[in-house]
Amino acid sequence: MICYICKENELKLLKHMDITPLLSNNALSMRRSQIRDLLSVATRPEIISFAGGFPNPQTFPLDDLKTIMQDVLDQEGSAALQYGSTDGVMSLRQEISKLYKREEGLDVPVKNIMITTASQQALDLVSRVFINPGDVIVCGLPSYLGALQAFWSYQGQPYGLRHNLGLDEACNVLCATGKKPKFLYSIPDFQNPSGETMTLEERQYAVEVAQKYDLLIVEDTPYKNIRFTGESVPSMYSMDPERVVMLGTFSKTFVPGFRLGWVVAPDNVIDRLIVAKQSADLCTPAFSQLVAARYLASGAYDENLKKTCALYHRKKDLMIKAFEEYMPEGVKWTNPDGGLFLFLKLPKQYDTRELFDIAIKENVAFVIGEAFHCDGSGKHTMRLNFSFATDEKIVEGVKRLANAIRQLYAKHA
Amino acid sequence: MICYICKENELKLLKHMDITPLLSNNALSMRRSQIRDLLSVATRPEIISFAGGFPNPQTFPLDDLKTIMQDVLDQEGSAALQYGSTDGVMSLRQEISKLYKREEGLDVPVKNIMITTASQQALDLVSRVFINPGDVIVCGLPSYLGALQAFWSYQGQPYGLRHNLGLDEACNVLCATGKKPKFLYSIPDFQNPSGETMTLEERQYAVEVAQKYDLLIVEDTPYKNIRFTGESVPSMYSMDPERVVMLGTFSKTFVPGFRLGWVVAPDNVIDRLIVAKQSADLCTPAFSQLVAARYLASGAYDENLKKTCALYHRKKDLMIKAFEEYMPEGVKWTNPDGGLFLFLKLPKQYDTRELFDIAIKENVAFVIGEAFHCDGSGKHTMRLNFSFATDEKIVEGVKRLANAIRQLYAKHA
Repeated sequence: MICYICKENELKLLKHMDITPLLSNNALSMRRSQIRDLLSVATRPEIISFAGGFPNPQTFPLDDLKTIMQDVLDQEGSAALQYGSTDGVMSLRQEISKLYKREEGLDVPVKNIMITTASQQALDLVSRVFINPGDVIVCGLPSYLGALQAFWSYQGQPYGLRHNLGLDEACNVLCATGKKPKFLYSIPDFQNPSGETMTLEERQYAVEVAQKYDLLIVEDTPYKNIRFTGESVPSMYSMDPERVVMLGTFSKTFVPGFRLGWVVAPDNVIDRLIVAKQSADLCTPAFSQLVAARYLASGAYDENLKKTCALYHRKKDLMIKAFEEYMPEGVKWTNPDGGLFLFLKLPKQYDTRELFDIAIKENVAFVIGEAFHCDGSGKHTMRLNFSFATDEKIVEGVKRLANAIRQLYAKHA
Repeated sequence: MICYICKENELKLLKHMDITPLLSNNALSMRRSQIRDLLSVATRPEIISFAGGFPNPQTFPLDDLKTIMQDVLDQEGSAALQYGSTDGVMSLRQEISKLYKREEGLDVPVKNIMITTASQQALDLVSRVFINPGDVIVCGLPSYLGALQAFWSYQGQPYGLRHNLGLDEACNVLCATGKKPKFLYSIPDFQNPSGETMTLEERQYAVEVAQKYDLLIVEDTPYKNIRFTGESVPSMYSMDPERVVMLGTFSKTFVPGFRLGWVVAPDNVIDRLIVAKQSADLCTPAFSQLVAARYLASGAYDENLKKTCALYHRKKDLMIKAFEEYMPEGVKWTNPDGGLFLFLKLPKQYDTRELFDIAIKENVAFVIGEAFHCDGSGKHTMRLNFSFATDEKIVEGVKRLANAIRQLYAKHA
């Protein structure tokens, strides 16, 4: 062969390939999860980790699943193990529609529900269908890291908003400077990581702003039904179903390991998402969808969810009690009505990345708050999960963390 | 609120939103699967469908799965139903590495294997990591539709090659005109849909061309182990593991419903793919990975695969016998050494899209060949699946199709 570069007869074989020049701009724009990298050091068994967003395995309905799995294999094994349709198994979509009716009195047509490989895929598909390189997405400061990663992976530019009330002004400025946002991304219930829940008025305001500037809203609701106290607030989807794409998941209310989530969206959006999902993974496993559908239909889902909420409520109270007992001066924390996380703030001059190294030596782990701030702020904040650890580890872990914070204070005294 | 467009006090609520102006260029570049749309008419029970790429449910190891699922829930239920790591469950990656050793004598380090939500996700992630809008990907004419969809969804431009031998020349011309391909996409074993298998020499040639122009090769191997006759040919990966990204799947050799596939790639590529998968779906279900790992370790996988190959071999022969008996003059077909498909050609003046409408009236379905040709050619071709239908339906379906072809001939006589 004649080399097309040097025009010589001899072909120099390029044994060790350098792929860097071949990477797409998407790949270069992707950000590796800081959680993942920081936590790779936190897997030693002696470390108490408040870092992940793991549900408590106590809440996994193992016995129910054993029975249901046998039934699915016995009664519909061939369909369960075959390719499924891209929009998802009909019986599961029907159960999700019933769930909305039961829990929120909301009528969601089955045709507007698409099953996804958990809500991370929904975030990915929504990003793929709407984000062009450079497009602005308005989100919270802080906001869910997985959503930020999805936006970045399509070269989107998340614009972080510290307060909901600034939304109109921010959209006005962005539009005036030619950076009209593509959509608003919001986790209105027990936000990850802040734990905040938008009031009814805040939701109405956000919908009005979206209408004013003709923007889409992406409403992410993974924690909505993990509520301990207070009343459920109507979704933004219920206020303008033509404008809101609502994401749901069974990861926190059932099991995360099946990777089952869904999107509710207007006809024209669902149609685009189905085409996007075709090339993303063809379909979500039919087997786990059929198992979930039967589990929901049995009524056990609702019962188990009540127990899950009671367990997490108790664990949240326990962690806060431990904070009150052990934390040094200046540490502030949230006390949310639901969800899986507490959000902590140190006095502004401290950096939780520095704290992280001390904490790991003390055998306790968390997620640095900076990871959730698309503008690099929030260096004095951190997220702690209370759903996964045992009661003993919650208390012991808080003691260790309080000790680490004292060391950080002393270092800078 | 003051409208930022009309500057008036009154806000005109935009009730019915037009999302079209919001769509990304990716979304506009995506192509809906023609298979999907054409086949939405082919779901009536009286239709014999040779259209899908469905494995035969007879091959699904239901009894083994019942036992293994109980064992997984009993012995590692908490881990199976929890979030898993992005690169996949270690035991499954180890089993895949052993499989390569056992089947091909190939050493594939576990660190270079990442589990994907079936091979469609692998195609998606590879496209995401390497394709910029306008990038050229060299593939076959015809080639696998799901791969073309993945390329299009990132605004890639597949360049179809009719003969492997034209590869050097094509790359030369593409490079000279500033359209250097990003990678070569190839299904070397029992290609979908052509059924062709690349010889050892053809593979060596492709690798040499890739080395000459410094291109990546994406080697897709879903059918490699569905071989009826002849000897397995070494993979291109084995010839230059630094340059080849190899995709595998359990969809045809185990069950498609678990959506389990994998990528084998050099360190630097695997690393990028893991970051991309983080934002695509965080992880593939741990439960199905643990079940698959135990199934492989038990030895039942190898045994079952032999039976699967024997069944498909028989069905392939049966369909070809029916062709010989019933097809009118001028119809040509492949006789591959493996895989799931036969590829048929009518005389050049006929269009299988027209045939499709007649065939549906005759209650038989197939996939039009044009769907597999990225340049819109192949209008006289079609793909037939022989793995799914019962023996009776294979014979009856071929009779109906032959009858439909005769009607097409008569219409144009």
